[in-house]
Amino acid sequence: MSSAEINKNEVDIVIGALNADLTSFLTSWRPFFTGFHLIVVKDPELKEELSIPEGFDLDVYSKTDMDKIVGASNSTMFSGYSCRYFGYLISKKKYIVSIDDDCVPAKDLKGFLVDAVSQHVTNLENPATPLFFNTLYDPYCEGADFVRGYPFSLRSGVPCAASCGLWLNLADLDAPTQALKTEQRNTSYVDAVMTVPAKAMLPISGINIAFNRELVGPAMVPALRLAGEGKVRWETLEDVWGGMCLKHISDHLGYGVKTGLPYVWRNERGDAVESLRKKWEGMKLMEKSVPFFESLKLPETALKVEDCVLELAKAVKEQLGSDDPAFTQAADAMVKWIQLWNSVNSSS
Amino acid sequence: MSSAEINKNEVDIVIGALNADLTSFLTSWRPFFTGFHLIVVKDPELKEELSIPEGFDLDVYSKTDMDKIVGASNSTMFSGYSCRYFGYLISKKKYIVSIDDDCVPAKDLKGFLVDAVSQHVTNLENPATPLFFNTLYDPYCEGADFVRGYPFSLRSGVPCAASCGLWLNLADLDAPTQALKTEQRNTSYVDAVMTVPAKAMLPISGINIAFNRELVGPAMVPALRLAGEGKVRWETLEDVWGGMCLKHISDHLGYGVKTGLPYVWRNERGDAVESLRKKWEGMKLMEKSVPFFESLKLPETALKVEDCVLELAKAVKEQLGSDDPAFTQAADAMVKWIQLWNSVNSSS
Repeated sequence: MSSAEINKNEVDIVIGALNADLTSFLTSWRPFFTGFHLIVVKDPELKEELSIPEGFDLDVYSKTDMDKIVGASNSTMFSGYSCRYFGYLISKKKYIVSIDDDCVPAKDLKGFLVDAVSQHVTNLENPATPLFFNTLYDPYCEGADFVRGYPFSLRSGVPCAASCGLWLNLADLDAPTQALKTEQRNTSYVDAVMTVPAKAMLPISGINIAFNRELVGPAMVPALRLAGEGKVRWETLEDVWGGMCLKHISDHLGYGVKTGLPYVWRNERGDAVESLRKKWEGMKLMEKSVPFFESLKLPETALKVEDCVLELAKAVKEQLGSDDPAFTQAADAMVKWIQLWNSVNSSS
Repeated sequence: MSSAEINKNEVDIVIGALNADLTSFLTSWRPFFTGFHLIVVKDPELKEELSIPEGFDLDVYSKTDMDKIVGASNSTMFSGYSCRYFGYLISKKKYIVSIDDDCVPAKDLKGFLVDAVSQHVTNLENPATPLFFNTLYDPYCEGADFVRGYPFSLRSGVPCAASCGLWLNLADLDAPTQALKTEQRNTSYVDAVMTVPAKAMLPISGINIAFNRELVGPAMVPALRLAGEGKVRWETLEDVWGGMCLKHISDHLGYGVKTGLPYVWRNERGDAVESLRKKWEGMKLMEKSVPFFESLKLPETALKVEDCVLELAKAVKEQLGSDDPAFTQAADAMVKWIQLWNSVNSSS
C-alpha cells in the first residue's frame, strides 16, 4: 500500500517531545509525514520552548493542556516518554503511528528511504494470522501466500491490533546489555512482517509503533513505571510491560499483533555506561511478570477493551501487588487510565 | 558457524531419490555435501538404476534393504517422498539434514551460494527460545541480542529440536494455490532465523529440513498419507502433519523449533494444472487436525519421545478415527514406526 492509497484522515502521528528542538527530526520525516495530522506532546518536565519547522499539520500539547483536560493531579502520569500517551488519549483517529524523536527514516535493502507510516498502516489494514504460523511470513504481501498445509478456514485472518516496527543502528536493548556492548549496532535488515502467534509473550517497544485506536486504544496504557525511569529508552519499562498487556488483551479478544517492518534508524542518545551504574529494576519486575501473564486468564465476560484493562488491573493488584509497590501503582494507573479514557472519549 | 567448525561425523545428509538421475542435484551440492556422510534412499517404486556422480561418501538403500531391515510388509510405508524416513530410521548420527532432490543451493542477498548444511547445523547447535518472542530474531546470531524486556531467566534458551528451511523460486504451496497461481514465484529472501513460539502450530515442510535425531528422532514419523498422494510435494501431507506432531511433542518436552534460513532454490516439477483436477484431500484433513492439536494435551508421564508418539497415536485414533480412515491409518503407522524404531535402534 503506497502513501497515496492511504486515507490520511484516519491517522494521527503522535510524537512525544523529550527534546525541545524537533527541527532535524521533523525535517527528516517530512517526505512521509506530509499530509498527515501530527500530535506533538511536550514532556511536562521539559521547560524550554519547542522548536518546530513550518509546513506541518500539527497540534502541540503541553502541561497546560494536560492540566485542563485530565486535571493537574493526573498530569504526572504523562512525564518523560509517557507524554505520548496523552496524544493517544485525545486523538479521534482510527490509527495511531508513534515514533521516538531520536529516530530518522532508515534505508531499505535497495537504499531507498523507508516510508514507516505507510508500512505501519498497511500492516494494520491487512489481517493478522495469530492462530497458525505461516512460515512464508505475511501471506498478504504481494508475491506471498499461505504455505502448504495452512488451514483454509484460517486464511481470512483476524483484525490487526498493533504493528511493532524495528530499529537499525542502535537496537532496542536494555541498559545492562547496551552498557556491556557499547559498540554493538544492528545492521541486519530483515525484510519481513509477521504475526506473533496467539499466547506467545513479547516485549513490545514503543520506539516505533502503530496501533488501531478504535480496536485497542484503551489497552495502550502507561502503567508500570520504574522508580528511577530516566529519559533514555533503555532505562524504561512502561512500553514493554504495557505491550504485554496489549498482547494479552489482543489474544483474548481475537486480534493479532504484527512485528517486523518498518525499520527506523535510531540515533544515539544517553550514556550507556552511566546507565550501567544504576540498577535496572526492570529486570526484576519482568521476572515476576512472566509467570503472571503466562497463567493469566481474563474472564470470558470481558468483551470490551476497557473491561479487559480493569480485569487485568485487578489481577495485577491481587497477584503481584505484594511483590513490589510498582505493580500496585501500575494497577492503580490502569484504573485511572480507563476513567480518563471514558471521560475524554465520551465528552467529545 | 562455518563448515570448518562443524563436526561432520555428527551429521547424516538423507536424500530421498524420487528420480533416478541424481547427477545434477549432487553436483550442485558438492561444495556443501563434501566431507559429510550421505544416505540416499531410493523410492521403492522407482525401477531404474540410480545415476550418482563419484566423489561422495555415500550409501544407497533400496527396497531390498527395506525388506531386509523392516520386513517386506512394512516397506510400503517408505514409498514416494516417505522413502527418506528409512534413512532417518537407520542413521546413527546426532543430526539429520534432508533436502528434496529438486532443490539446488540458493543465493543469498550478496549473491553467494548458501551453505544450507552449515546453516541447519548452526540452527540446531544454538539454543531455541520458544517461551518468549524475541523481536530481534535469533539472539544467538553474531551482532544480535535479546531485546529490552526479554526476561533474563529465559536467555539461555532450550535445546533446538528442528530447523525448518525455506524456498526460493517455487515456494511450498498446496496444490490448489500452486495451480491457481502458476506464475507465482517466491523472490523474497528474508535474512532471519527465529524460534516458533511454544503452543503455536505450524505446517512443517520436509523439503528442506534438519533435526536433532538424538532428541526427537522417533517423532519424525511418516504417518498421515493421502490416498492419492503423488510424487509432487504440493499433493503430499505426510511432512506437514508429521511436523505438527513434532512441534507438539517438542513443546511438550521443552524443545524449540526454528524456521527461516537456510533457503534452497526449488526447481519446477510436476504439472500444477494436472494437480488441480484432483481433489486435494489434505484440505479436509487439516481442518480436522487443527482443533485436535489445539486441544491436545499429552500426559505428563510421557517423558520419552517414543511415549509421546504412542500417546499421540492413541489420541488420534480416539478423537479423529471416526472422521476419516486416513487418521486411523496414521495412528497405526505411528505405532508401527515406534516398534520399528525400537527394534532397529536397539539391535545395533
